[in-house]
Amino acid sequence: MISKLAEIVGEEWVISGDEAKLYSYPAFIPLKIEPPVVVLPGSEEEVISLVNFLNENNIKYIVRGSGTSLSGATTPTQGEVVISLTRLNRIYSLDNFEITVGPGLANFLINKTLGNSNLFYAPDPSSYVVSSIGGNISHDSGGMHTPKYGTTFDSIIRLKVLLSNGHVEEIGSSNFFDPTSIFVGAEGTLGVILRATLRLFPKPEVSKTILASFNSIDDAGKAVVSVYKAGVTPAAMEFLDKNSIIAIENTQYKANYPMAEAILLIELDGYSVNVEEEEVRVVSAIRNNNGEVFIPKDEEEKNRWWWGRKGAFPSFAYYSPAYLTLDANVPRSTLPTMLRFTYEISKKYGLPVANSFHAGDGTLHPLIGFDPKNADETIKAIKAAEEITKLAIKVGGVPSGEHGIGIEKIKFMKLYYSEDDLTLMRRLKATFDPKRLLNPCKLIPPAKNEICNTVNRIHTYLLEGDI
Amino acid sequence: MISKLAEIVGEEWVISGDEAKLYSYPAFIPLKIEPPVVVLPGSEEEVISLVNFLNENNIKYIVRGSGTSLSGATTPTQGEVVISLTRLNRIYSLDNFEITVGPGLANFLINKTLGNSNLFYAPDPSSYVVSSIGGNISHDSGGMHTPKYGTTFDSIIRLKVLLSNGHVEEIGSSNFFDPTSIFVGAEGTLGVILRATLRLFPKPEVSKTILASFNSIDDAGKAVVSVYKAGVTPAAMEFLDKNSIIAIENTQYKANYPMAEAILLIELDGYSVNVEEEEVRVVSAIRNNNGEVFIPKDEEEKNRWWWGRKGAFPSFAYYSPAYLTLDANVPRSTLPTMLRFTYEISKKYGLPVANSFHAGDGTLHPLIGFDPKNADETIKAIKAAEEITKLAIKVGGVPSGEHGIGIEKIKFMKLYYSEDDLTLMRRLKATFDPKRLLNPCKLIPPAKNEICNTVNRIHTYLLEGDI
Repeated sequence: MISKLAEIVGEEWVISGDEAKLYSYPAFIPLKIEPPVVVLPGSEEEVISLVNFLNENNIKYIVRGSGTSLSGATTPTQGEVVISLTRLNRIYSLDNFEITVGPGLANFLINKTLGNSNLFYAPDPSSYVVSSIGGNISHDSGGMHTPKYGTTFDSIIRLKVLLSNGHVEEIGSSNFFDPTSIFVGAEGTLGVILRATLRLFPKPEVSKTILASFNSIDDAGKAVVSVYKAGVTPAAMEFLDKNSIIAIENTQYKANYPMAEAILLIELDGYSVNVEEEEVRVVSAIRNNNGEVFIPKDEEEKNRWWWGRKGAFPSFAYYSPAYLTLDANVPRSTLPTMLRFTYEISKKYGLPVANSFHAGDGTLHPLIGFDPKNADETIKAIKAAEEITKLAIKVGGVPSGEHGIGIEKIKFMKLYYSEDDLTLMRRLKATFDPKRLLNPCKLIPPAKNEICNTVNRIHTYLLEGDI
Repeated sequence: MISKLAEIVGEEWVISGDEAKLYSYPAFIPLKIEPPVVVLPGSEEEVISLVNFLNENNIKYIVRGSGTSLSGATTPTQGEVVISLTRLNRIYSLDNFEITVGPGLANFLINKTLGNSNLFYAPDPSSYVVSSIGGNISHDSGGMHTPKYGTTFDSIIRLKVLLSNGHVEEIGSSNFFDPTSIFVGAEGTLGVILRATLRLFPKPEVSKTILASFNSIDDAGKAVVSVYKAGVTPAAMEFLDKNSIIAIENTQYKANYPMAEAILLIELDGYSVNVEEEEVRVVSAIRNNNGEVFIPKDEEEKNRWWWGRKGAFPSFAYYSPAYLTLDANVPRSTLPTMLRFTYEISKKYGLPVANSFHAGDGTLHPLIGFDPKNADETIKAIKAAEEITKLAIKVGGVPSGEHGIGIEKIKFMKLYYSEDDLTLMRRLKATFDPKRLLNPCKLIPPAKNEICNTVNRIHTYLLEGDI
């Protein structure tokens, strides 16, 4: 098999043994499984040849980008060949309000390319410096700008996808039987994204940052709802709890935030008259909920505040060597309830927790610290995460807002979806991937007749543990 | 069969013979075909029983609402039982920014129900007074407010759908394998919409109407592009050509428009400061393209202008007893080219043409007059429509922006989509409707082994004529 793969992509782009260990797990820490071989095709034609070869020989495979999946969507649990698309990183065209790129391009490079033009690409997951566009699409990634500009789905104009039978399809540009909503967020279980045409937005003429601090989580939660009730859709509205603030202030991300139970970091954008009017409304929504308002005194302070927010995840190292990142999306009105529950869970399991998240769209991000060298503690952290996810579903939420299901949350699909729903998903998968070769045993809980191997007790717990 | 149907829905709700003729064609005039029987279920349970009965007995069926399809999507061409959902018109709940309704409810009744609340439902197809929400969803209907608020798809939060196997699914609320984008616009070929939860928007605080008249179609087209380049997204931007203006001014829709080669009727909405800023930019975009600006002097004049626009289709009776309505969606920059071509085609075929359409989103609506009593002239009109649609595809457009494919444009699917695309669509259809009972021989051109009966030469031409 390896010689055939080398024939397609060239010997230097087929990796196995020690080097392949680099691809043994994405950002989802609890499970490390080495792939038998990693292939890095350099062109769409090579990807098509690879898929045809794998399909003809019934070989399972996983397609990945930069490996930033937090849900283990690209962990090779079933001995799959791993295809990395990082070399497919071309910018094909840039026309007016559209850009067409390869799936391996890092998100960040789009805005870098746009430079001083008056356009920008909106979806900005925290991983944007490295995460690839193909991965963003396959997870329907959100980000700080989701409340106003939507998730990755909302920025997709067209996709060129490769199906397992070797056919190349253009999807998204049509009105009829358009499978885009099932492809986006499918975590690579349906086909390969070869090329994406993305929507660009005009840069806002003005943007304004407001920081609000609160002595209670409830007040902060109410302020979030009040902002929307005042008719304002902020470009971003980020929530940091006290644990996050402490971590940030004690690491290189130090932002000089006011010490408080919670802060909201808000960005407004648009025409200047519009932003002025929104500022009046937002300030009043904050003060009506007992918040204190801070305006950055200069560009430097503003950038420091946002840089601090970007450091919320990495600065969690202050508490713990590794963490799980949840991402349930819940109704905005339930945010305080959810947060209080994360602190209870922290106490119950004796594991550190911090919350920093996109309050604007209700996507929570509790971080739960654990020691990945300790399998017992790892499973304990997974159990803590499960309790939080269960409550999120109970209050009307969805198990994952933007990080995907992967292997991490696969059991929760059974809590959230009915067996009929899952059957329909399996039928849709079979339409695109009749041989079940593409990223098997992920996202959709396996049907009764579907065999999924497990490699250790953490894996077994993720796939089959009680819920 | 009829006695079994009567058992399910009650005798008075099963219609055949002369009464069924009322359901022999929707607003698509060229083809009248009587259904063997029409059933009007009164509850979701009755719909489920009907579908189970029809499925078990391999009986083809069509589901329809108010019958306003302009593409013949609900014309019973294959002897189908017609299920009318007009009795499923309940409003189930109205919560904050969401409303849940039955599929038979007329679009208009949502905003009537909302009354003086501060919310509104945005999608407003011209047929909104009668067309049903189920039909709007099945055609992904747009309307005047599409440029700012999107099509029906963008207002869908959740759908409760009935699949042909009798399973009821909730779709749209999940992130994973969500089939909403294939269900919306599927013209009833995949399943039955039982209930829809729709997004409501806060009513804009201020709205402002601006009318612009132009002595050339090119200038009007350029002004449309300039408005967007100025960073303004109008709530509505409607285009009327001279032929439309003449028709409106000579019928009950008389609006006292300035006589011009083209007018744009623009609505801006938002906060007052925002609308003021947008007005400055729009007025400058109009004047820079040699347009003259008119502001309504009072509420009455403003309403008259919009009422005139709403009368653009019915007032076409001034030219012709019936008309075909095209709805290709084209890049905004090609609007003048497309319009000029409609006048050439009018001359070539000796048939009247008028253009009134949503310039904001590039959805053309050329009306082509013909005498439906004359089969030759009907086919001539269809041929004229085909030439226009072909050019629309050539300049980068889509054959249908909002009226759907139905039977009217089924051949064009082969021009726009590759055989691989169509194969994928057929596979998706088979996933939901393996027996091909749901609205067969519509939307997707039949596969080679699929038999479609034709009833007359117009039908044969629509299905099989040269393109």
